Amino acid sequence: MEFSPVVPPDSRVAAAARRRQEILTKPAGALGRLEDLSVWVSSCQGLCPPQQFEHARVVVFAGDHGVARAGVSAYPPEVTAQMVSNIEAGGAAINVLGQAAGATVRVVDIAVDCDGPDSGYKVRRSSGNIAIEDALRDDEVHAAIEIGRRIADEEVDAGADLLIAGDMGIGNTTAATTLIATLTDTEPVAVVGRGTGIDDAGWSRKTAAVRDAMYRARRFRSEPVALLRTCGGADLAAMAGFCAQAAVRRTPLLLDGLVVTSAALVADRMAPGARAWWQAGHRSTEPAHTLALDYLGLEPIVDLGLRLGEGTGAAVALPIVRAAVATLASMATFEGAGVSDRLPD
Amino acid sequence: MEFSPVVPPDSRVAAAARRRQEILTKPAGALGRLEDLSVWVSSCQGLCPPQQFEHARVVVFAGDHGVARAGVSAYPPEVTAQMVSNIEAGGAAINVLGQAAGATVRVVDIAVDCDGPDSGYKVRRSSGNIAIEDALRDDEVHAAIEIGRRIADEEVDAGADLLIAGDMGIGNTTAATTLIATLTDTEPVAVVGRGTGIDDAGWSRKTAAVRDAMYRARRFRSEPVALLRTCGGADLAAMAGFCAQAAVRRTPLLLDGLVVTSAALVADRMAPGARAWWQAGHRSTEPAHTLALDYLGLEPIVDLGLRLGEGTGAAVALPIVRAAVATLASMATFEGAGVSDRLPD
Repeated sequence: MEFSPVVPPDSRVAAAARRRQEILTKPAGALGRLEDLSVWVSSCQGLCPPQQFEHARVVVFAGDHGVARAGVSAYPPEVTAQMVSNIEAGGAAINVLGQAAGATVRVVDIAVDCDGPDSGYKVRRSSGNIAIEDALRDDEVHAAIEIGRRIADEEVDAGADLLIAGDMGIGNTTAATTLIATLTDTEPVAVVGRGTGIDDAGWSRKTAAVRDAMYRARRFRSEPVALLRTCGGADLAAMAGFCAQAAVRRTPLLLDGLVVTSAALVADRMAPGARAWWQAGHRSTEPAHTLALDYLGLEPIVDLGLRLGEGTGAAVALPIVRAAVATLASMATFEGAGVSDRLPD
Repeated sequence: MEFSPVVPPDSRVAAAARRRQEILTKPAGALGRLEDLSVWVSSCQGLCPPQQFEHARVVVFAGDHGVARAGVSAYPPEVTAQMVSNIEAGGAAINVLGQAAGATVRVVDIAVDCDGPDSGYKVRRSSGNIAIEDALRDDEVHAAIEIGRRIADEEVDAGADLLIAGDMGIGNTTAATTLIATLTDTEPVAVVGRGTGIDDAGWSRKTAAVRDAMYRARRFRSEPVALLRTCGGADLAAMAGFCAQAAVRRTPLLLDGLVVTSAALVADRMAPGARAWWQAGHRSTEPAHTLALDYLGLEPIVDLGLRLGEGTGAAVALPIVRAAVATLASMATFEGAGVSDRLPD
């Protein structure tokens, strides 16, 4: 699985954007993180001032997980298919939050455990129970990564200027946690969270599943594709391909919570440098999410106690990125507005 | 200075909103702070589901401060008037961030140190240097509070359904810090920040000014109006009247940073219970701001390292409040979408 080299965002445009922030009518640095975000968007677009996003796009990768049958979730597996229908009908949180943020939403059935017309993107139904077997066959993991890459290409070719990846799948936090714990060499008990809201007995089952999956996965720590095959899933593999290809296509991307960020960890291995094209939308309450963000060196934009997935945390952060762009694009300069600059030191 | 009693937001509607969040298609509690904010808006509006804000309004209270002549700011005092013109022309950060958040902006000259046509809201030019004298005369502080109250009434009568107070005034963080340190009985060195970006010598001058002003102000700790007269200013007094009257008029309000929150501390004394109608938009980098937020028991929505004022931190938070409203107003229910609820425990 080879990705084209990732070209970093334009450092000269970043420097110009930083200089422009300093001549806008406010004390230098007073917009804090907004200034950093505006510089990042400028460098990604290669434009100073940057342009406001006109085609922000959320892609929700849906897939079931065999491990859900091991009692690791508070919800039955059929909820995945039901929620895909809910997203298609516009009733889910990501629909509402995407609309509020000015982003359109697409949901893709990668591995939902249901029949139905082939979307052209479906790799298989569900995945192997990672506590006892590989999630995917070798051909399946390659197909899934390729589908994620294809989806990124489709979206960028259709005009998307900002991408958000989202997840939907009962059991997917068990796989995501296994990926993160394996890649960061962390004990399961330190990182397993409550997912959709499991009780103590469920947490114990989930921790046991993560421990067993990690036992099988650990020898693939430096082989990202084998890791996705062993303890990931087709939806996670497609997300990883999507996040990697967004960077290859020089398109900024906002990461969501635990599941997407676990795929991003793998994506940055498959396409080194990809993380420079990403910002972390939010910090989830899942312990493994913070671990993954630290590993990627990303500081989340908001911290609102969300633990929903679907891309919702990134969608909530998007208006803040838009606000950052607006300052650099539209504020007056000291000279233009006739405002005195600071006193000489 | 008497305010009408503050009626608390409707607790029965809050309970209904909380129940409704639990039947929406996501795990209970998974939207974290967004759920709390949606419940708060519902209770303020007395409506479940709540309505999206249609007339969000920022009012920037502009005034100069005599203490600025004591070298407590990195900018010369004439910047206040220049920035008022910049806001009127639409070039300031609050214009850009207000527009991004769907809020209109009004700036009112309460005490700018300039000539010009009387706006009908101007109390005086600048204020006394609080390090050595009272900021205002007794008639001036009452006039300023009354003007703030009048502005809140005007805005609510004109249809505003969410208010944001902002500040503009060189030297105003010195007065605000004095108010907060006095009301919370804190040592100046623990709370004085860098304001617009002063150097070490300026910080020492500012800390000395706060210490001297606190020495004169401390005997008025339980007299909010006298406190505004002694170590506040007309702009701060007007802000306090505005924040108090917003609560009297049952209109939700987002607090901004240090200066607005200092006025809010006083407002909650003048109109007990007013704080229930407020949310803290953001956490500023100014140490005294966190002190004031803790005192009011408010948790900021975002923490982005902003230290600009003008209402910008509240404007950046507004889209998140809108997102919260949207979830409760527009998401599908489990029953409506045919999605299975959680497994029995």
